Amino acid sequence: MTLNDQSALEARIDDRIDATLEYWIEQLGRLCAQPSISAQRLGIDECAELTATMLREEGFETEILPTGGSPIVFGEHGGRSDRTLLFYNHYDVQPPEPLELWDTPPFTLTRVGDHLYARGVSDDKGQLITRMAATAAVRDVLGELPVRLKYFVEGEEEVGSPNIPGAIDAYKDMFAADGCIWEFGSVDYSGRPEQTLGMRGLCYVELTVETAALDCHSGLGGSLIPNAAWRLVWALSTIKGTDERIRIPGFYDNARPAHERDLAYLAQNPDHSKDFLETYGLDGFLLGMTGGTELRRAAVFEPTATINGLTSGYQGPGAKTVLPAQASAKIDFRLVPDQTPEEIVPLLRAHLDAEGFPDVAVRYVAGVKPARTDPDDPFVQMSIQAAEDVYGLPPIVEPLIGGSGPLHPFIHVLGLPVVTSGCGYPNSRVHAPNENIRIHDFINGIRHTARIITRFAEL
Amino acid sequence: MTLNDQSALEARIDDRIDATLEYWIEQLGRLCAQPSISAQRLGIDECAELTATMLREEGFETEILPTGGSPIVFGEHGGRSDRTLLFYNHYDVQPPEPLELWDTPPFTLTRVGDHLYARGVSDDKGQLITRMAATAAVRDVLGELPVRLKYFVEGEEEVGSPNIPGAIDAYKDMFAADGCIWEFGSVDYSGRPEQTLGMRGLCYVELTVETAALDCHSGLGGSLIPNAAWRLVWALSTIKGTDERIRIPGFYDNARPAHERDLAYLAQNPDHSKDFLETYGLDGFLLGMTGGTELRRAAVFEPTATINGLTSGYQGPGAKTVLPAQASAKIDFRLVPDQTPEEIVPLLRAHLDAEGFPDVAVRYVAGVKPARTDPDDPFVQMSIQAAEDVYGLPPIVEPLIGGSGPLHPFIHVLGLPVVTSGCGYPNSRVHAPNENIRIHDFINGIRHTARIITRFAEL
Repeated sequence: MTLNDQSALEARIDDRIDATLEYWIEQLGRLCAQPSISAQRLGIDECAELTATMLREEGFETEILPTGGSPIVFGEHGGRSDRTLLFYNHYDVQPPEPLELWDTPPFTLTRVGDHLYARGVSDDKGQLITRMAATAAVRDVLGELPVRLKYFVEGEEEVGSPNIPGAIDAYKDMFAADGCIWEFGSVDYSGRPEQTLGMRGLCYVELTVETAALDCHSGLGGSLIPNAAWRLVWALSTIKGTDERIRIPGFYDNARPAHERDLAYLAQNPDHSKDFLETYGLDGFLLGMTGGTELRRAAVFEPTATINGLTSGYQGPGAKTVLPAQASAKIDFRLVPDQTPEEIVPLLRAHLDAEGFPDVAVRYVAGVKPARTDPDDPFVQMSIQAAEDVYGLPPIVEPLIGGSGPLHPFIHVLGLPVVTSGCGYPNSRVHAPNENIRIHDFINGIRHTARIITRFAEL
Repeated sequence: MTLNDQSALEARIDDRIDATLEYWIEQLGRLCAQPSISAQRLGIDECAELTATMLREEGFETEILPTGGSPIVFGEHGGRSDRTLLFYNHYDVQPPEPLELWDTPPFTLTRVGDHLYARGVSDDKGQLITRMAATAAVRDVLGELPVRLKYFVEGEEEVGSPNIPGAIDAYKDMFAADGCIWEFGSVDYSGRPEQTLGMRGLCYVELTVETAALDCHSGLGGSLIPNAAWRLVWALSTIKGTDERIRIPGFYDNARPAHERDLAYLAQNPDHSKDFLETYGLDGFLLGMTGGTELRRAAVFEPTATINGLTSGYQGPGAKTVLPAQASAKIDFRLVPDQTPEEIVPLLRAHLDAEGFPDVAVRYVAGVKPARTDPDDPFVQMSIQAAEDVYGLPPIVEPLIGGSGPLHPFIHVLGLPVVTSGCGYPNSRVHAPNENIRIHDFINGIRHTARIITRFAEL
């Protein structure tokens, strides 16, 4: 196909997207009306059924795959070529609470001007609908799909996708593909699309100490018996110092530094450091960083140890002179390639033992491996170009982002290059009340996805 | 008076105590029926009025003294000599909650065999009634009081007596005396009476850190912005190490070691270390201590720093990847003579600043000075002998106990030797549901108090 032919085709697809917009907003409302709160197992099976029904209505063959947790909805449709594109999305949502902070009913799609409000309207039901709308528009214009498409729609993303690596191992052949569009995509404040190429891993642990069978009066036991809160504080203080360096021997062994190519992308990206400082009411960043490429590098290419919570003893108003028998801390380690959560837990255990804290128990709560796609993969470069064509602005290419998701088995088990596209924007309020998208972002997300489908056939 | 005369007199007083027992149990029920919860300011003024009324019924002149908080009930009655004995007690009680754990209504005195149940029946209304019953019995038998008696009954002991040092400064002449019986007294498991001669001081502080205007996603801010929980952990770890030594420069400067005489008393006292280990489910004590005089010395003559509580970030089940903007800890320092809470706070502030934690705020919550009575004071020796005569067992003399109370102004402002007597026993459940005393301890407490009154006239 010549470039002119391609442009003409994409213009016709864009017209079709415009013509079917109201239909797909209705479908988005249909999907958002079905609560599907994985944290509470509320409406999960119903939403899996609805997702499969909607895919069947678009001509897909579907299966609902058990995982031990929420089922995966799998959909497949042949195309002109056997090259296969996989969409990874999720049908589950965060709980809507606190309900009193919503201006509209969370499970009723509400349109106000250019905005659509509902729980999941962005994360991830809106993103999923951009894939379905793009699929339909491409098929309508071409008369058939140019490539084979597969939908992998899971139902536990909001609780850490605990069963996804296992499901991918189990159904590896079924999910085989040549490229993957990830579950999200967004523009930044200035309207530039973001192209995310990797995510950090996560190792979430809980440290607990129990020093006695019951709490003690501090006047009685202060000099005599171990205090769980002190044990916890001392143990934690050996994990990381004020230099922010993690002191667990071996922790950094598998941490790879950013490549030159990564740094080049980071250097091109906008500097939001002033906005960031203002949002969080800060005078400056850790370790004297002031912004620029170094800050952006540190933000994602450094592994971290974050205390998420501390609990011990009396936490009410005023004074209670209690010596607590129990204390606990939650910590997440954000991991960079090629660290793994599986290696961190025994390193932490050995470290605490060596430092004299065998009494501090370590419980592994959740984790995912870090993963990244090669920025130079032709599929990635195609997606970047397609985004620039749709948005009229050069994408922000993020070689790695600070957050975590179940990206690793898609890249490293299924062997897929992974790109992003979608309908988010910085004020989408995902996970929060008044979650929303803008209709013009929704249209652009559909257009970008449709271009990836059509150009993928030509790669 | 000869020893025979004294014995005959005391026997007659004991008979009178037996004869009036039912009346004083009724009076105890009357006082317990009036709730007086200082933490909630519930029934405080009513209980102060009732206490004054009951003292007036015994012929005392009374005044209700404002303090800025709960009023002090002051009662005074002249005697044959102008030597003056002061009773320090309190009419306030702890909240009765959790109510569902009471077997009887907390504000209805309930008699079951040898036991009396009610909130405050031991702490401190029962102890107060032993003073009033002893006073009445001595007066009834002698026809007049042998010495001048003063009642100092406060209403904020259960919330740390914040206004007592100031009130003692303000009403110093009114409270002038030659000796004092403290608000409590008890026997141990074996029935030996305890004679307490001092209490540790207390400096209760709250440390708080606020590192940002709001919490941050840990994937976003982990490498970039300060984490309040880490700041708190690092700051706390500079205060005390695993060797239990407090690292605040100057902290120990005014801490006096135990005297030879103190160690001699501690050496005579029973070793409850095995019971203690069993109660708290421990294999051993801190720092390898195994019991004996050294354990008893460390328990009370070492100042301590106890973390009472830790709070930061997410404390619910499972994983939340939040970087907390706020963290706080409650710490109590137990102080030994001659440390003061007033000196500890600036030392702690200077220490945190020097260690690089000016961002960790220190708030002084409450405190009292440590204080001790000279074991060789004739008044103290008289009380010890009187206890042995009543109980038929040598008292356990505790030169200092681990807990804290407003003892300092009585000893060091009013200049009084202070002893203990009363009706407690190890299972009195003070501050807990089913607070109770045993009637035979109540009788012995009255007898001991009566002997102190009569022998005090002869000192």
